[in-house]
Formats: sequence, structure tokens, C-alpha cells
Amino acid sequence: MIIKTTCTPASMFSGERFSVTYRIYGDEKEARAKAESICIEQTVEFPAECVGKGTIRDHVFGKIESFERRHGDSFHAVISYAVEIAAGELTQLLNVIFGNTSIKPGIRVEHLDLPFTLTTGYQGPRFGRKGLRELLRIPARPLLCTAIKPMGLSCDELSDMAYHFALGGMDMIKDDHGLTDQRCSPFEERVKKCAEAVGKANKETAGSTIYVANITGPSSKIRDRAIFAKKAGAGGLMIAPGLAGFDLMRELAEDDSIGLPILTHPAFLGSFVTGHGGMAHGVIFGQLARLAGADATIFPNFGGRFSFSRDECAAIVQGTVEPMGHLRTIFPAPGGGMSLSRVPEMLETYGRDLIFLIGGGLFQHGPDLAENCRHFRTMVEKME
Amino acid sequence: MIIKTTCTPASMFSGERFSVTYRIYGDEKEARAKAESICIEQTVEFPAECVGKGTIRDHVFGKIESFERRHGDSFHAVISYAVEIAAGELTQLLNVIFGNTSIKPGIRVEHLDLPFTLTTGYQGPRFGRKGLRELLRIPARPLLCTAIKPMGLSCDELSDMAYHFALGGMDMIKDDHGLTDQRCSPFEERVKKCAEAVGKANKETAGSTIYVANITGPSSKIRDRAIFAKKAGAGGLMIAPGLAGFDLMRELAEDDSIGLPILTHPAFLGSFVTGHGGMAHGVIFGQLARLAGADATIFPNFGGRFSFSRDECAAIVQGTVEPMGHLRTIFPAPGGGMSLSRVPEMLETYGRDLIFLIGGGLFQHGPDLAENCRHFRTMVEKME
Repeated sequence: MIIKTTCTPASMFSGERFSVTYRIYGDEKEARAKAESICIEQTVEFPAECVGKGTIRDHVFGKIESFERRHGDSFHAVISYAVEIAAGELTQLLNVIFGNTSIKPGIRVEHLDLPFTLTTGYQGPRFGRKGLRELLRIPARPLLCTAIKPMGLSCDELSDMAYHFALGGMDMIKDDHGLTDQRCSPFEERVKKCAEAVGKANKETAGSTIYVANITGPSSKIRDRAIFAKKAGAGGLMIAPGLAGFDLMRELAEDDSIGLPILTHPAFLGSFVTGHGGMAHGVIFGQLARLAGADATIFPNFGGRFSFSRDECAAIVQGTVEPMGHLRTIFPAPGGGMSLSRVPEMLETYGRDLIFLIGGGLFQHGPDLAENCRHFRTMVEKME
Repeated sequence: MIIKTTCTPASMFSGERFSVTYRIYGDEKEARAKAESICIEQTVEFPAECVGKGTIRDHVFGKIESFERRHGDSFHAVISYAVEIAAGELTQLLNVIFGNTSIKPGIRVEHLDLPFTLTTGYQGPRFGRKGLRELLRIPARPLLCTAIKPMGLSCDELSDMAYHFALGGMDMIKDDHGLTDQRCSPFEERVKKCAEAVGKANKETAGSTIYVANITGPSSKIRDRAIFAKKAGAGGLMIAPGLAGFDLMRELAEDDSIGLPILTHPAFLGSFVTGHGGMAHGVIFGQLARLAGADATIFPNFGGRFSFSRDECAAIVQGTVEPMGHLRTIFPAPGGGMSLSRVPEMLETYGRDLIFLIGGGLFQHGPDLAENCRHFRTMVEKME
């Protein structure tokens, strides 16, 4: 049985296409067959032989634009899709890129090439690198960020910690991503006290430190938490799109009644990068974070307690800065088991456009938190 | 520097804990060290040696409840967490289960054990197996579901297809998961026409077929789409939590103003199951889908064009039915490259409490869609 497509005119398709580079494991024959199946799986999900000549075959099917061996064990296939099938929705764009194909082993999304007609539908990062530097009044040096933790402390203890971090000259003080709305540190009380504590320290030091509230939580409460945080004096928001959804982050970023910088946290996204399938680090932590409006992307630094390589971290940086239409460049924020001793090596790898995210390591340097922060900041300033 | 925990009384913790079974790859020493690191990573994310005696160490830290070799290459570690650290939030529960640990290779979530004090905070599936059978008036036989597709057809063509599927006796007719709000078949027009077409067929056949609208889309529009679909006469909703977020699905399921059965689609979730890390099939497509309120969970059938094994599919079924407090059992809905010839083998594997999801395969049997459906239904009815 052949499906005819008499009612959908070709004029509904502009001819503009976006491209996804897939790394496909296997021998050439197998990899090419997989590339061909992606063209169908990600679009019509329907037996190709049942689709007659016409608009669907010409425009809706994915098209292999190139196919070549790039590694001994795998091939790179660039497959293009009509921008119209993504329907101007981030959720559907993700679906076309990798929806069903995510379930097939040995296929990895390596890169996205999105034409202007597609990116123009996204506001992207509200601040980006430039805006965040202006907000924090730091024209050139790396930014310094730390986290209040551990979970289990009271709001008074956490805000006291935030106060000392700010006194010591950290630029951004964020909630640990595990702090949401636990009874020992409820969201509203914590955010109010921490924002106040950081404000108090700013007055004493004439500083511009911002408190970044973690607003990850139940879907329908996230916007309310963002607005509460803003009113309470938070200077930024953190959200984990793996838990809350990339599209919800996009909506927050595009919401003019919020208008705070957004840090994205990688929690629950790791499975995309730990296997042979999934997505390349630069796509999920770089390009997608940026398309969805993050101003900075947190990820595990190489050589820490996670397993990212230096190359994988460099690929994330590439995703934060490569041309993507009008989308602003964003800050990479490597962290995770960082210690002060790693600073020189990181500056060498990342350059100065990065956010140093240091958590537990600040506690291990000496007994005085503010003093530990000053030491860290001085070390970074000296290296300018 | 040692963090004291003077302000958080132990009385804030009930002593109730939930448990996660992790499969950890590596030799015994390595696996045990990883298990110990999970206890910290998923909770305080802070150097353990900096946490003094008291409430945090006693209650907030994860605890290894058991550790044993279960396979030649890996160990099973059961780690428990205080229910209070999940804060009654699904997002934070997912974060505690696998947030940062998802980023570490060679660790897989194998099973969840959630005490009544935790599951009681979730409504879970509104219909479940029993409710869906009552709604469709099918007491015992397997349910039959198909999808309107391919993307690129007009609303008239899609609704005509839905009409013939309903005439042919399909119980559920769902949108293909790629149909969202494309210009060639806009959401509202499509849903209205398809619901009407199925309603018309029901009148002619005295049937109870439902049309299931795909409401996956921009976060802030999903609830509106659900309500529109209900008003238009849709009998069910489909959502892809990998794209929209598990918590958003939970909110829909718990929303009394919607009250339709929910089918969950696996798009964009594949990376959780294709590597050595991630989550077991029974957790992500079974237990989590159920906790988040799905009434049926769609997944790729074994032996189709995806790579799930028969055992992995059986594990999903186990997740849909094993005891989880008051949460209703839900339907497994295997699909993906199914053909009519697979029916007998599937009945043997799944029993009768399943939804047969057949898409393109229905088109390949013969030229008359309704007739193909009747053939499928007769085949299933004969096997009762």
C-alpha cells in the first residue's frame, strides 16, 4: 500500500534544512544502512517503500549530505532535515535530532548545524559571556564561582557560608544542585537568607557578587521559584535541564519578567556521554545548553573525580563559542572535584573566558573560608 | 576544616529510607570505592572528611546496605537514602538516584525500592491496567494500538486514516510521536479532526476506540494542548518525558481537570539504556514511567528494528507490575517495527496484559487499512 501525498503542497517547505552529524559505529555497509535508516526513523518512521513520490519523499525524509570514514571504527554521516519538521519547537527539534535514534546503539550525535532560519526562532542566552561580564563588572579575568553545601545544613548555616564566600571575593555563589526544598533548608527561606547575606557582604566590600539560586523542582513551581528568587535579590538562577527539561530552561531564559542569568547543571544528563551512543559533549553541554538559553554551562572538569578528557572539555568550550546564528557565546564552567592546585593547568586549557567552579576544594585549603576564597582569587588575578 | 551540623536536628529525619540498586562495573576494590563515592556524590557532594559527626553524617549520607558480586564483570550495591532528601519532588528524587552519578561511566541504576512514605506523595497512574480496560470496555484480551503517520500528511489525510483504523477495530489510535504542531498538520486542527473521525467510526461500529493526541511540545503549552485535546474529544494523551520531562508528565497525570489516560513515548531516552551506564530498562521505562503517572509505557519490542532483548522487555513488564506502594500497574506497549507475524510470539512472551503497538506494519499487509486492522484484531481475539 502506497501513501500518496496529494494534500500537502511542496510550498509548505522552504527548502531550508538543518544538519546533524552522526558518528555511526560499524563496518561501512552496516554504517551506511544505519545512516539510511536514520533518515526515515527520525522523520516519517514509516516503511519508505510505502511512501509515494511527492512532498513527503522530497522534503520530509532526512537526506544523507555526506558519509565518510573518520575513525577506524566508525563513520560520520551528515543528515539534513527540513526546518519545518521541527515545528519551531525545541522539544520537536530534539526529537528530530535524536528521538528514536537514541534507542539504537552505536549512533552518536556529534554536531549540529542550524541555519539562521532555525536559530532565529530562539532567543538564546540573555546575557552570554559579554553580558555576564558586564553584570559582574569583570572585564577580562576568569570568573570565580563556588557552591554552598552540604545538604543538611540549615538556612542560617548556608547563608553564613554564602556571606563568607562573598567576603572572600567569589563572583558567583550558587546553591549546591542538591539543595531544592528540603525541610532542613526550605527554598524560600534559604534563597531569602542567602541573597541577603551576599548583599550584606557586597556592601562591606563594595563587591558585585551574585547569589545564584537553584530553582530545579516541580515543573509548575519552577517559574514561581525564579520570580521569588529574583524578588529576594538573587542575581542568577541555576537549573538542571536533565531533570526539568531543556525546553523549560528555554522558557525561563526567554521570560522578560525574570531576566536573570542562567547556569545549567549537568545532573542526570551523564548517560548521553558515557557510552558509544548518546551525544558528543560539545552538543549536549555546549550547543544545546546555549540554544536553550543558558548563560553558563557547568560540566565536570577533566582530571577531576569524573571521567571527561581534556579534549572532551575543549569540545564543550567549542560548543559555547562556535558560530550559531545570533546566539550569544556562553561561559564554560568546569567544576567537580576541583582543587586550587588545578588553577594554572585550567587557565592554560581554557583561557580566561571561563568560570572556575570550586566547591569542596575551598574547604580543604585552610580553616578560614573567606581567606581561602581570597587565596583563590589572588591566584587567578596574578595569572592575568 | 570540619563542617559542624549544630542547627539541623536529627528529628528532621524520620529514619525512612529508599534504596537504589546500582550495578557497578570493575574489580571488587574499584567497585566498592565507587559505591562509597556514590553515597557522597548523590547527597552532600562534599569531602566526607570535612563533615563532622552528627545529623548530616548519620542521615544525609547515602548508606551501602549491601554489596555483592552478581555478574563476572560487576557488582550490585544497594544504597539507601533518607526520604527527606528527595524533598517530595520527582526532580529531586531523580537527582538523588542518579544526578551526578549519571556522569560516571560504568554505573547503572538497576532497581528502585521506594517505601510507602515516599510513593504516597505521588498519585501515580490515574487509570492503570484496570482503569484502561474499563475505559475501553475490554476485560481480558490484549489491547490494540496503532499510529497515524507519516509526518507530512495533511490533517484530512491523517484523520481519514484514523477513521479507517477505528472502523477496523483498533482500540487506541495515537498520533505518531513526530506529529506535534507542523504547518502541514497543526496541532489543533489535527486533534479536532482526528477525534471527530474516531467518534464517527465509533458511532458506526458501536465501538469504544479512543484517539490519543501527542501533546509533547513547548513546556508552557503542554497543559493547554492536553485540555484542548480533551475538549476536542481525544480519549488519551501521549507524551515523551525524555523531551518534556518526567515531572511535567506527573503533573498532567495528577491534574483532575484533565483526567485522561497517558501513554509515555521513549523518544530521546535511549541513551539511558544503550551503554554500560544509564538505567536498566525496567527502571526508566517501567518504574519511573509508572511513578510519573503513565498508564501505558511504549518501548521497542525485542526482535524489531531496535536492539532490546527479550529479557530487557520482560524487565520492563516487571517494572509495570511489581509492587510499588499504592501505584497502579500499567500496560507495557511494545512496538517499533512490529509486523502482524510477530503477534503469536509476543502473546507468548507478554501474556495478555499488553498493548500491541503496530504502525507501519499495518500498511504492509494489504491495500485496505480497515481490513488490515480487522485481520490483526481477529488474530489476537482468536488467541484468547
